[in-house]
Amino acid sequence: MTHTGNIMVGIDMGGTSLRALVVSPENEILAVDKTATNPAQKPEGVIADIAGLVEDVVRAAGITRSALAAVSIGAPGAVDTEHGVVYHAPNLGWKKVALAAKLQKLLHVPVFVDNDVNVGVVGEHALGAGQGTSELIGIFVGTGIGGGFISGGKLYRGSRGAAAEVGHMVIQLDGPVCGCGNHGCAEALASRTAMERDVRAAIKKGEKSIIPKLMEERGKDRMTSSIIQRALKKHDPLMQKVISRAQKYLGILVANVVNLIDPECVVIGGGIAERLGESFVEPIRETAYKYFLRRHDARRVKILPGTLGDNAGALGAVVLARQRLAGAR
Amino acid sequence: MTHTGNIMVGIDMGGTSLRALVVSPENEILAVDKTATNPAQKPEGVIADIAGLVEDVVRAAGITRSALAAVSIGAPGAVDTEHGVVYHAPNLGWKKVALAAKLQKLLHVPVFVDNDVNVGVVGEHALGAGQGTSELIGIFVGTGIGGGFISGGKLYRGSRGAAAEVGHMVIQLDGPVCGCGNHGCAEALASRTAMERDVRAAIKKGEKSIIPKLMEERGKDRMTSSIIQRALKKHDPLMQKVISRAQKYLGILVANVVNLIDPECVVIGGGIAERLGESFVEPIRETAYKYFLRRHDARRVKILPGTLGDNAGALGAVVLARQRLAGAR
Repeated sequence: MTHTGNIMVGIDMGGTSLRALVVSPENEILAVDKTATNPAQKPEGVIADIAGLVEDVVRAAGITRSALAAVSIGAPGAVDTEHGVVYHAPNLGWKKVALAAKLQKLLHVPVFVDNDVNVGVVGEHALGAGQGTSELIGIFVGTGIGGGFISGGKLYRGSRGAAAEVGHMVIQLDGPVCGCGNHGCAEALASRTAMERDVRAAIKKGEKSIIPKLMEERGKDRMTSSIIQRALKKHDPLMQKVISRAQKYLGILVANVVNLIDPECVVIGGGIAERLGESFVEPIRETAYKYFLRRHDARRVKILPGTLGDNAGALGAVVLARQRLAGAR
Repeated sequence: MTHTGNIMVGIDMGGTSLRALVVSPENEILAVDKTATNPAQKPEGVIADIAGLVEDVVRAAGITRSALAAVSIGAPGAVDTEHGVVYHAPNLGWKKVALAAKLQKLLHVPVFVDNDVNVGVVGEHALGAGQGTSELIGIFVGTGIGGGFISGGKLYRGSRGAAAEVGHMVIQLDGPVCGCGNHGCAEALASRTAMERDVRAAIKKGEKSIIPKLMEERGKDRMTSSIIQRALKKHDPLMQKVISRAQKYLGILVANVVNLIDPECVVIGGGIAERLGESFVEPIRETAYKYFLRRHDARRVKILPGTLGDNAGALGAVVLARQRLAGAR
């Protein structure tokens, strides 16, 4: 089978790993590869790793690099999408890195860069849970809480490119302090980081939980999504209590956003939603509907878990790159 | 001076009064008239009053009714704009009133109906504080808190026509109960009704205030915007405390909305903003900027008091009617 034309590589850059997909013009995944990122590495080292990963995944797909139309990357931080510059990516320790220009020099194909949550939301809209909708909100719950907003079928960026920061919506004015310095942001109440903080505080106060043992067994120093999943499977009462509270906050967050934007669909993505799926989203949905101002047709607004899992970001990056190549750049 | 063509009457329906403007094709106000509404009246009586008001204001402008291109109304409640039906207007005691059809029968001109906050926001966008912007949020503070959202220069209605309900954004999860049944909505914290509740509770607890005396002198049983203005002029400490708290909540509300929509401009309208202007908006603005996630260019987002005062709604209704007559209805 030969593929000509619009084959692309999509890359999702995380704080700990790189994931690359070769994607056909029909949005089939032709090959997948991933590699760990070393946060101690300088940007040049990471960019060389990305170039190597592209070479590998293209080879795995059985095509030549010259058949590639573009490489498109979702990066964890603030991005100047016009120039492909990563302004600030705290998880990578990056400031003002000209990612597109540098990678383009190594690979000799056009490189596009966007924010990791934006590409994830575009992926779920174009190819995942939100297919066929015109107005969509994506909320990604992980270390933080990020969001993206599709309006008229396209990514909405706002007047300063600062739209859809759902994680910093204040919903509990006197709540816990957030990484941003304010109090009571959704991220400070319902992210994985917030849940871990609550679990640790409860254990310190003497509450019983299987979580420390699970973390030790699996050699984790963080309460990852897989630890959360395992603790829930074992009916750990502390984990159940903490996640229920986070789900209530997330339900209110969803309702606040829906009461403002009134989208057709809200997609809940990110690591926890990916692992737990419907069982994570169901309590969020029920709380959200209760907080909708207009309740008689509340259920016309779908609230769904993402369906693309790990591939949402890389697929969305490819979709965005296609739009940019099609339009005047 | 003769006016031909696109002359329209815009009407702002309040719970207690009707205000009508005759507006030229160049958006000059040619005549103003108003009349009280009697809430005990049936819808038919109010609609007859509206027809009479239109006759009067058209006569005052020195034109004939046949020169009118349309009458356009902002109504306080949920409106089916397609059919000109007021679904539910609690302040008027209306349910499913075919306002457009009934008024059209009396006046023999096209009649358009939209929500009162929507028309106010369109007015401020087209002719007031938000002129020239493409993305704008209007927040109107009065008995309740309403909002409207301009996107791409046009009123954004959302997928169910339920967008921009800023008043029911939860910002203090365990806060006071709201008219909608939830707790801690912005409206339950910072509307005129919420401020009056807080003033009454403080007085009951023994706090000194000039407000009861002002209300008695002026024969008011509600803490109107004019009472608020007067109490502040007299440096009433309770009024200062209560309005400062409301301004803080409103600042957080503005920031929550900006962190999501990232507009070019936020216009604060409604009775209190109209009376107090910049002195009402300034503390809201300063709190809002502190809660913006992206602060380095925060001040690119303008936060302004409305400039059209009482005329915002009627003018906006005319602007919307022009758009609808120009497009395919």
